[in-house]
Amino acid sequence: MNQIDFEKKIKFYKELIDKRIELISRGKKPSSLYRPIEFFLESSGKRIRPILMLLSAEACDERKALRIINQAIAIELLHNFTLIHDDIMDNAKLRHGKETLHRKYDVSTAILAGDNLLSMAYKSLTKNLYQNSLLVVNTFTDAVNIVCEGQSLDKEFENRIKVSRDEYFKMIRNKTASLISAACKIAALTIDASKDIVNSLKKFGMNLGTAFQIKDDLLDMTGQSVHFGKKLGSDLVEGKKTFLLISALNNAKDDDLKQLKQLIKNKGIKISEVKKYFNIYRRLGVVEEANKSIQLFTHKAINNLSIIKNSQAKSYLTRYALKLLERSS
Amino acid sequence: MNQIDFEKKIKFYKELIDKRIELISRGKKPSSLYRPIEFFLESSGKRIRPILMLLSAEACDERKALRIINQAIAIELLHNFTLIHDDIMDNAKLRHGKETLHRKYDVSTAILAGDNLLSMAYKSLTKNLYQNSLLVVNTFTDAVNIVCEGQSLDKEFENRIKVSRDEYFKMIRNKTASLISAACKIAALTIDASKDIVNSLKKFGMNLGTAFQIKDDLLDMTGQSVHFGKKLGSDLVEGKKTFLLISALNNAKDDDLKQLKQLIKNKGIKISEVKKYFNIYRRLGVVEEANKSIQLFTHKAINNLSIIKNSQAKSYLTRYALKLLERSS
Repeated sequence: MNQIDFEKKIKFYKELIDKRIELISRGKKPSSLYRPIEFFLESSGKRIRPILMLLSAEACDERKALRIINQAIAIELLHNFTLIHDDIMDNAKLRHGKETLHRKYDVSTAILAGDNLLSMAYKSLTKNLYQNSLLVVNTFTDAVNIVCEGQSLDKEFENRIKVSRDEYFKMIRNKTASLISAACKIAALTIDASKDIVNSLKKFGMNLGTAFQIKDDLLDMTGQSVHFGKKLGSDLVEGKKTFLLISALNNAKDDDLKQLKQLIKNKGIKISEVKKYFNIYRRLGVVEEANKSIQLFTHKAINNLSIIKNSQAKSYLTRYALKLLERSS
Repeated sequence: MNQIDFEKKIKFYKELIDKRIELISRGKKPSSLYRPIEFFLESSGKRIRPILMLLSAEACDERKALRIINQAIAIELLHNFTLIHDDIMDNAKLRHGKETLHRKYDVSTAILAGDNLLSMAYKSLTKNLYQNSLLVVNTFTDAVNIVCEGQSLDKEFENRIKVSRDEYFKMIRNKTASLISAACKIAALTIDASKDIVNSLKKFGMNLGTAFQIKDDLLDMTGQSVHFGKKLGSDLVEGKKTFLLISALNNAKDDDLKQLKQLIKNKGIKISEVKKYFNIYRRLGVVEEANKSIQLFTHKAINNLSIIKNSQAKSYLTRYALKLLERSS
């Protein structure tokens, strides 16, 4: 009877989240603050983090999943706050195929919209929060802190010649994985799951988030032509220290190495050179290396769930995690 | 025996706060994030909000004042977060006589430093917080939200021809007074004061903060030549909708009104015209009007404290409030 189809369940959660987010700033004033927020939140994000949270809560206790909806919305708002400010810092033109906020309005409006989104996130976080409330707030705050540190490292790396693989992993754990980890942990804390389960979901999120970011790096090369509204090869053009670039640097010799050093020296390449660099990446086997790494971290993530008893909800959580890592956009 | 001199007490609190703030980011990495934060926090702010909080707590219960030190630091960090982002939005060059953060570094660094300061503020807020913790967090979050709304209104007003006195008051309550109100309320909540006292301190902060902002507007005309590192008449040059401008517009006729409308149309004046506009303000009696308004709100604020039993601590709180409104910089 309760065997709701996987796709239907994901669709149901996504629509629920979209609806809640749609209403969160409707009619609020001042307009100069809330209309830009509305514009940004309406964009077609995949709502990955709150869906993961609802599935995580359901895997812990099928009856309680929807109790964490406000906390799930909080994580999505926090994520959107980071996107708005990152877009300013990266001077990005498009987000989800639409104009970025600082381009549609201006930098001041985007800064303030981001700041206010963070306060809206905290507001949602403490709504109907009856268990472990201070722990939930602190986990959330730590995530904000660590994401800022990660973004700072990412910017630092753009200006550095050498970035080790370990440094890269530290950066993506901070910038991307820590938020997904905090999301899953908060889902468990909010429904008062056991310490072991809280800890397992925290690790699950960290490993999944790491795989997720490597996949994101890989999609800059192998993705569908419009990947999050970005053009293929954008990371190369911007000289970002991605998994691909760091692997390539590790493997390259002679002329390939010379070309890669050129890229780093110039902090990026011309759009016309993207194809050439993709060929270097292919030659050096970085696609295979990325896929291997994604599989490794995914495997670890799935293993982290072993403590949770098997159920349809758990199988959906696993399936959603795998789906994220097989995505093409 | 315990009759510590007023000035000594304020100095003791200021040094305590400075010391705590000095240590808060020391040695932390990444450097590209924490050194800018350190640079900004070192500047010679007056630490008005945390001092008010310590005095408020002491007025409620002499033995408990220092228990709220982490919450007092949290409010100061939140205040600094708003300053860093406001300076970007206002394109300000100086803050406390030093370069603003986005000018010493760049806009990206300043955005991220501000964001991270807010997470550091939340971290400090929940440290050693044993009473009313969710209420404290929610009061703090509401303050962040309302300050953003106030800043947004302030920017909106820069582009508007007409701003009523009521709209001005709403804006300064949001932008300035709400944070001072939240600070005093949080001091009372943290030491678990009675509901009546919590409410009185909240109102006290709101009235004091309103008087404080009008004084701030007035100091743009009557202050010492270096007022927070700003030159006299900056608000006029930037065309800010201050108490002075709104009063002047209410009172002006004929040529004065024409000059003021010119200012609004051009969204500001030349530096060379400052003297002329100060003369208009003087002619129209706006200095007296501002002083009257400051006295009115100060009187209300002091009255809000009547519920608290008299003590040396309470007299110090009153004295500090009065001192704030008699300042010349």
